[in-house]
Amino acid sequence: MFEAAELGRKLSREEFDSIAPQLRNELLELQHQLRGADFPVIIVFAGVDGAGKNETANLLSEWMDPRWIVTRAYGKPSDEEGERPLYWRYWRDLPPKGKIGLFLSSWYHAPLVDRAFGKISVAEQDESLERIANFEKTLADEGALILKFWMHLSSKAQKKRLEKLEKDPLTAWQVTDSDWAHWKMYEKFAAAAERLVMHTSKGHAPWAIVEGQDSRYRSAVVLTAIRDAVAKHIEARAVAKQVAAEIKKKPAAKAKAKETVLDTQPSILSSLDMTLAVEGQEYVQQLQEQRGRLAKLHQKAKERGVSTVLVFEGWDAAGKGGTVRRLTAALNARDVQVIPIAAPTEEERAQHYLWRFWRHLSRAGRVTVFDRSWYGRVLVERVEGFCSEEAWRRAYAEINDFEAQLAEHGTVLAKFWLHITPEEQLARFKSRETIDYKKWKLTDEDWRNREKTPAYEIAINDMVERTSTRLAPWTLVEANNKNYARVKVLTTVCDALEAGLKKQKK
Amino acid sequence: MFEAAELGRKLSREEFDSIAPQLRNELLELQHQLRGADFPVIIVFAGVDGAGKNETANLLSEWMDPRWIVTRAYGKPSDEEGERPLYWRYWRDLPPKGKIGLFLSSWYHAPLVDRAFGKISVAEQDESLERIANFEKTLADEGALILKFWMHLSSKAQKKRLEKLEKDPLTAWQVTDSDWAHWKMYEKFAAAAERLVMHTSKGHAPWAIVEGQDSRYRSAVVLTAIRDAVAKHIEARAVAKQVAAEIKKKPAAKAKAKETVLDTQPSILSSLDMTLAVEGQEYVQQLQEQRGRLAKLHQKAKERGVSTVLVFEGWDAAGKGGTVRRLTAALNARDVQVIPIAAPTEEERAQHYLWRFWRHLSRAGRVTVFDRSWYGRVLVERVEGFCSEEAWRRAYAEINDFEAQLAEHGTVLAKFWLHITPEEQLARFKSRETIDYKKWKLTDEDWRNREKTPAYEIAINDMVERTSTRLAPWTLVEANNKNYARVKVLTTVCDALEAGLKKQKK
Repeated sequence: MFEAAELGRKLSREEFDSIAPQLRNELLELQHQLRGADFPVIIVFAGVDGAGKNETANLLSEWMDPRWIVTRAYGKPSDEEGERPLYWRYWRDLPPKGKIGLFLSSWYHAPLVDRAFGKISVAEQDESLERIANFEKTLADEGALILKFWMHLSSKAQKKRLEKLEKDPLTAWQVTDSDWAHWKMYEKFAAAAERLVMHTSKGHAPWAIVEGQDSRYRSAVVLTAIRDAVAKHIEARAVAKQVAAEIKKKPAAKAKAKETVLDTQPSILSSLDMTLAVEGQEYVQQLQEQRGRLAKLHQKAKERGVSTVLVFEGWDAAGKGGTVRRLTAALNARDVQVIPIAAPTEEERAQHYLWRFWRHLSRAGRVTVFDRSWYGRVLVERVEGFCSEEAWRRAYAEINDFEAQLAEHGTVLAKFWLHITPEEQLARFKSRETIDYKKWKLTDEDWRNREKTPAYEIAINDMVERTSTRLAPWTLVEANNKNYARVKVLTTVCDALEAGLKKQKK
Repeated sequence: MFEAAELGRKLSREEFDSIAPQLRNELLELQHQLRGADFPVIIVFAGVDGAGKNETANLLSEWMDPRWIVTRAYGKPSDEEGERPLYWRYWRDLPPKGKIGLFLSSWYHAPLVDRAFGKISVAEQDESLERIANFEKTLADEGALILKFWMHLSSKAQKKRLEKLEKDPLTAWQVTDSDWAHWKMYEKFAAAAERLVMHTSKGHAPWAIVEGQDSRYRSAVVLTAIRDAVAKHIEARAVAKQVAAEIKKKPAAKAKAKETVLDTQPSILSSLDMTLAVEGQEYVQQLQEQRGRLAKLHQKAKERGVSTVLVFEGWDAAGKGGTVRRLTAALNARDVQVIPIAAPTEEERAQHYLWRFWRHLSRAGRVTVFDRSWYGRVLVERVEGFCSEEAWRRAYAEINDFEAQLAEHGTVLAKFWLHITPEEQLARFKSRETIDYKKWKLTDEDWRNREKTPAYEIAINDMVERTSTRLAPWTLVEANNKNYARVKVLTTVCDALEAGLKKQKK
């Protein structure tokens, strides 16, 4: 694979100067155009030590407008980073639409080095590489342009390069013992790199292998490739927009199948016993009991650094707010964070839709409560047509992957759908209209949503089918009786915490 | 995940009859339309035993025109199948364009059962599932419509179903001990199934989870989904064709970058020492020696059932034919098969481009020589524009995956590019013109190809970069001197055989 990057390709100074000024202008011009674009550019530099990753990154930063490009490099996870799932730091650093993010020693670092050192097996490396492929696909599916450059040096060239750096007193400090240790393991690194490139070179995120020995050749190749790819992507997005608009016009695409007997089948919500209730003294007692249990369990989780993420979804007026309040009341305010999900902010709109959930993941031992969540994509966005069918269909896999990362990190995750019957909802709406201090809670939108109940039922059923997994199960809560719902939620959270703590012990 | 398929959904006879006749007509009508389509339909039925996979398959076959639908089910690999890579039997059975293939207990069987029985770890299951995902993506990328139905039964419903079958003397034989053994492992199967569905439900090959308890409901859901998907795919392919035509018209898409100093860089072929030669007695001796070695090694490989696949690519007049003859002369004719790859047959054109190579894989212990090969896609098809850029770009990954399957099966694989300089080629062309019995070998196409040498050089360089891997390395052969080339090829084949036999021993 890498033999084609050991040919001694090089450019003389004159050759380089014959293309550099124009290339630089074009890059700047493209960067300017990019500012109005609806996608970010993600550039990854990786490869053999000494093959010029840093030098090329520096040149790129020097040539471009620094306000619209940001370079990130990663070392060992910081305390802050280590307390969250591995990819949290990468999500945090993703460039918004219109900007370029340049990543050094990125998500590719560990799967390469750990495999070269034999810390992980081939199958484990493949698992890391599949996670990478999913990550990049998730970003590319929303439009991101992803470019990856593997800078290569032969074993001989790497040795020469290290020796040259060592000789010069000004650069000798750059060469560390670990550089030489890695060089001695050249073959192992090459084998791990080959598998890495093979498994993660995809149409939407291809690797370009670059001969790294000659800095002028290397820079010219990389910068030319970036120029061409950005120009092509800007054009492709414009064409795609046009095509989508034309397809929308076609009458056939809109034709809706007639309703048949299949459309009147029960959904998963119909399996709930909506008469379940708990009242009076029994309620007070159970609530107290579970709150005490929660306080104790959370104390243990906090000591052990186990985080908790709770997701609340449900019909309008199903009692999410009240339930969340009963729950948080059992916890120390400093340990819990409630995130109400409404319309995204300007900053959030400039990012992938999952970005704003990743950013809210708390440090170790904390409880994060999402009042509405990433499931908006497969609920309201699907029903209201705010995103394409393709987008909400692929969201199930994206969400499963996100939640699998939480689970792997040891985070306790519980997801609740608070269900009330249409009759109960109507009664609650009406009561809200008449009680002054509750009036503000009822909007015209609530009435409009109510008309879409059948469409929501289908969406909820699909959501449970696709995202209720062993790692992250849904709990459907019979919430016609608020007391019952509150006790059930509290009990489920406690059970999940207990199970999570037990698992961690193993 | 499966709880949404345990709701007791069912259709009465009247309800079923209210939609059945029309559905049946529509399916037949679509099947008729499909015959002119440029894609095959691949339908997979899988799921819980007793959930109605067979019954639904039977109904589908009964309703449709049996000439254009074929049903395949798989048991333990036969002798014939076991001697080839695992997926050989699935490739062999793929439906051609315009037909429907219905697969029961297919490529999903082993990853499910082996995981449920704990024969493979979660990571190993994930590897099998990634292989499946790659297989289905490869087919879908060329246009195949892939539909997958997971028929579900709850543990309770499965028990009831088995008991009912046992009670009736006419169906009791259908229930085996292994059915009950599987039922007792219900939870393990469910966990394995959940992972399977999660990892292989992709936009281009989604799973639909179907409640299997009621046969009328199950049939209506599956057949309706098939009808809708086929109709949509026929339309989508037509739209895509139109869009592609429109994009082609855009002048910007065609604009070619000016040539720069980067385009004059050496390719991997320039690294070869074209003066290498071996003559006279030395040649005869080396040839004899390697032929003897090959005969012995092949004998061993035959005894041990190790197959060999040899790929020959190279410039026109580079001497592929002569080299292959020297090689096969050392082997027993019955053990070797030379496959000359020219234009595909009609049957082959109706299949995925890799199909015609899969079909030629030989039984254990044989040698298969491909005179030109699957690399046509990234060489001639790329250079001549016979396939889209997207198609040849993704072919690298498809080819790597194909060759990885050969390697995993233990097949010895060697790939040769026979290189001659343009001057040598010209000399050989001219000599062919003058020698009567060689005239037929030279066509106008050879002269035309010659003009495209620079484009081929880029394609060859990319091919080596992308597909020369540790599992399946390329050998570039300096072939200006025919003798040298023959000895190098023979020696390389022997070395590969030797290494393969050693590996198998471990």
